[in-house]
Amino acid sequence: MKLIVDLKDKSYPIIIQRNSLTHITDTINVDRKVMLIADSGVPDKWIDIVYNQCPDAYIIRFNQGEQSKNIDTYAYLLQACIDKGMTRKDAIIAIGGGVTGDLSGFVAACYMRGIDFYNIPTTTLAQVDSSVGGKVAIDMGDYKNIVGAFWQPKAVVIDNNVLSTLPLRHQHNGLVEALKMGLILEESLIEEFEKDELNIDQIVYRSIDLKRQIVEQDEKENNLRKILNFGHTIGHAIEGAYGLNTYLHGECVAMGMLFFIEDKHLKMRIQKIYERLELPSIPAYDTDTLLNFIMHDKKGAASSVSIIKVKKAGSYEIVDMSYEDIRNVLERGPYEE
Amino acid sequence: MKLIVDLKDKSYPIIIQRNSLTHITDTINVDRKVMLIADSGVPDKWIDIVYNQCPDAYIIRFNQGEQSKNIDTYAYLLQACIDKGMTRKDAIIAIGGGVTGDLSGFVAACYMRGIDFYNIPTTTLAQVDSSVGGKVAIDMGDYKNIVGAFWQPKAVVIDNNVLSTLPLRHQHNGLVEALKMGLILEESLIEEFEKDELNIDQIVYRSIDLKRQIVEQDEKENNLRKILNFGHTIGHAIEGAYGLNTYLHGECVAMGMLFFIEDKHLKMRIQKIYERLELPSIPAYDTDTLLNFIMHDKKGAASSVSIIKVKKAGSYEIVDMSYEDIRNVLERGPYEE
Repeated sequence: MKLIVDLKDKSYPIIIQRNSLTHITDTINVDRKVMLIADSGVPDKWIDIVYNQCPDAYIIRFNQGEQSKNIDTYAYLLQACIDKGMTRKDAIIAIGGGVTGDLSGFVAACYMRGIDFYNIPTTTLAQVDSSVGGKVAIDMGDYKNIVGAFWQPKAVVIDNNVLSTLPLRHQHNGLVEALKMGLILEESLIEEFEKDELNIDQIVYRSIDLKRQIVEQDEKENNLRKILNFGHTIGHAIEGAYGLNTYLHGECVAMGMLFFIEDKHLKMRIQKIYERLELPSIPAYDTDTLLNFIMHDKKGAASSVSIIKVKKAGSYEIVDMSYEDIRNVLERGPYEE
Repeated sequence: MKLIVDLKDKSYPIIIQRNSLTHITDTINVDRKVMLIADSGVPDKWIDIVYNQCPDAYIIRFNQGEQSKNIDTYAYLLQACIDKGMTRKDAIIAIGGGVTGDLSGFVAACYMRGIDFYNIPTTTLAQVDSSVGGKVAIDMGDYKNIVGAFWQPKAVVIDNNVLSTLPLRHQHNGLVEALKMGLILEESLIEEFEKDELNIDQIVYRSIDLKRQIVEQDEKENNLRKILNFGHTIGHAIEGAYGLNTYLHGECVAMGMLFFIEDKHLKMRIQKIYERLELPSIPAYDTDTLLNFIMHDKKGAASSVSIIKVKKAGSYEIVDMSYEDIRNVLERGPYEE
C-alpha cells in the first residue's frame, strides 16, 4: 500500500507494506553517503537490514527515551555528519520511534541548511503520528518540541514486520492516536477497533491516510491541524504530572480524550475499546496539579485554551475554554455519573 | 529608498533610508513581545532607539565576534525566548553585524518551528551581504555556517546613520562585497567607487538591488547564487590561515578576487579602488597552507572546485578547477608580471 502526501514540490510517498524494509532502494536513493540514526532500543536486526542495502552508510545511535531529545544529542548527531564528511547531497535515515524521527529530522533540516531525510518508524505511535507531517523538533528543559522546524521527509517506509519486536503495550499505545483520528474524522475507523481481529496494518494505513489529508490542507499548523490535538491538553498534563515512566504518550491521550467525548453512548463504546487495548484507567489525579501543567504548557500566554470536543463519532468541535472551565471539567471527572 | 525582495509568500521589504531607525514601526509590527538581539559591540544608542519604540521588548546581548556564532550562544538565545514566554506570534529583531543576523535568524527559524524575524544590520558588510537572502546559520568547530536554515526576514531596515559609530576600516570592509557585485554583474557599480565622493548609501542600495535579483532567481542556492562566491575560495583560505584578527572578511575576499580577474586593465582599475579603500595588500602566503584550507572547506568531497572568474567588468564565468589548477594559480600569484 502506498500513499502520496501532496505538498507540491515537497510531496512524498508513504509505503505501508510488509517486507518493504528488505527493498528500501525502491524508495530511497542510497547511492550516496547515508547516515542511519537509531536509538539504543531499536533491535540491531532492523538496522542491519537497511545498512546492508546501502553501499556507503554509517550507523549512529543514542540513548533511547525522551530525555535524549535535547540540544546535546542534536549537536552530537550534527558533529557525526561533519565527521563523516556528509554533503548537501547526502541523506539521513531515521530508524526508530518518535524521538528518533523528531531528532533526526531536525538534524536533517539544519545540516548544511537542509539535506534529504527519510523516516522508517518502528513503533505504531511514530507510524500513525509523528512520521507524517514534517514536524521535527527537540525539547528544551520542560518544554517539549519548543525548538524545531517543518521539514518534510522524502519518503516514509513502514514495514510492520518490525512490530514483532515491539511489546504489545507499545503497539496499543500508538493505536490510540489512530483511534483519535477515527473519533474526530471517520466513524468507520472506530469500527476497525471493534472487529473480531485487530488488523493493525489496516488501522495504520487508514489513520495515516486521514492525517495526510489534514497535513495537505494545513502544512504549517496554522489552523485545521490543531484538531489533531484532541485529547492532548489534559493528556499532556497527565504526562507531565506522572511522567512517561508511568504512562506512555498514547495512554495519556486516551485519558485526555475521555474528558471531551460528550456523548454517553460513544464514550461507552470507546471505553470498551480501551479495555480491549488494555489501556490503564485514569488515576485519582489532583486537579490543581494538572491545571498547573496545562497553564505551563501554554506558557501563560493566553487566558483561554482551544479545546477539541467530540459529540458525534467522526466529527469535532473547537471551543475556547477558560482555565476555570477546564478546572470544572477536571473536577467533574471523565466518567458519566 | 525601498526594495522588495519578491519571494512570493515570503516576500519582504528592504528599507534603505537615513533615520529609518527612528520610526521602525512603519515597517515592523511591534505590538507583541519583541526580543532584541545584539552583540556586545553595538553601541547602546542604536539599541535604545529601537527599544524605546517597542512596548513589550527585551534586550539580550552576547559577546561580539565569530567565535560566538556557535551552538552554545544559539541555545542561550533560545532559552531567553523561553524564559520571556515568547509565543509563535512574537518576533525577534537582530541589531548588529553578520554574526548577529545569522545567529538571531537561526534562532527565529527554529524557535517554536519559526517566528517572525527582522534584521537591522549595522555594518556595511551585513547590509550588502548577509542581511539579504535568508541564509542563517551557526558554525561548528572549524566549519563555518555548517548548521542553519533558509529563513527569510519579514523586513530589513538599513539606516546608515549607524555608520557614524563604525570604524572606517569596517565600513570599507563591507564595501568590498558591493564591489564584487559590480565586478560580476554591473560595471556602473564599479564606477561608483571611482567617483570623487564615495556615496555609501548609493553603493549599498545598488549592491543590495543586484543581490535581490539573484536571490529571487535562486532562493535556496541551487545554482545561480553560487556566483556570489566570487573571490571567496581563496579569500576563505586566507581568512583561515591568518585569522579574522589579522584581516577582515571583506579584505580577504578582495584578495581572493584579484586572483580571478583575468583582464590586466580591469585588475589595475580594481587595485586602484583597493588603494582608495586602504585595503591591506596580499601577504607572502604559503601555497600549501592555503590549498589545505581550500580542501578542508570542501571537506574533500569533490576533486574539483567551482570557481568564478571575471574577464570583463560586469560579467562572470564559472569554471571547474582541479586542486592542481588552483595550486598553479596560487603559485603564479595575484599580480601581473
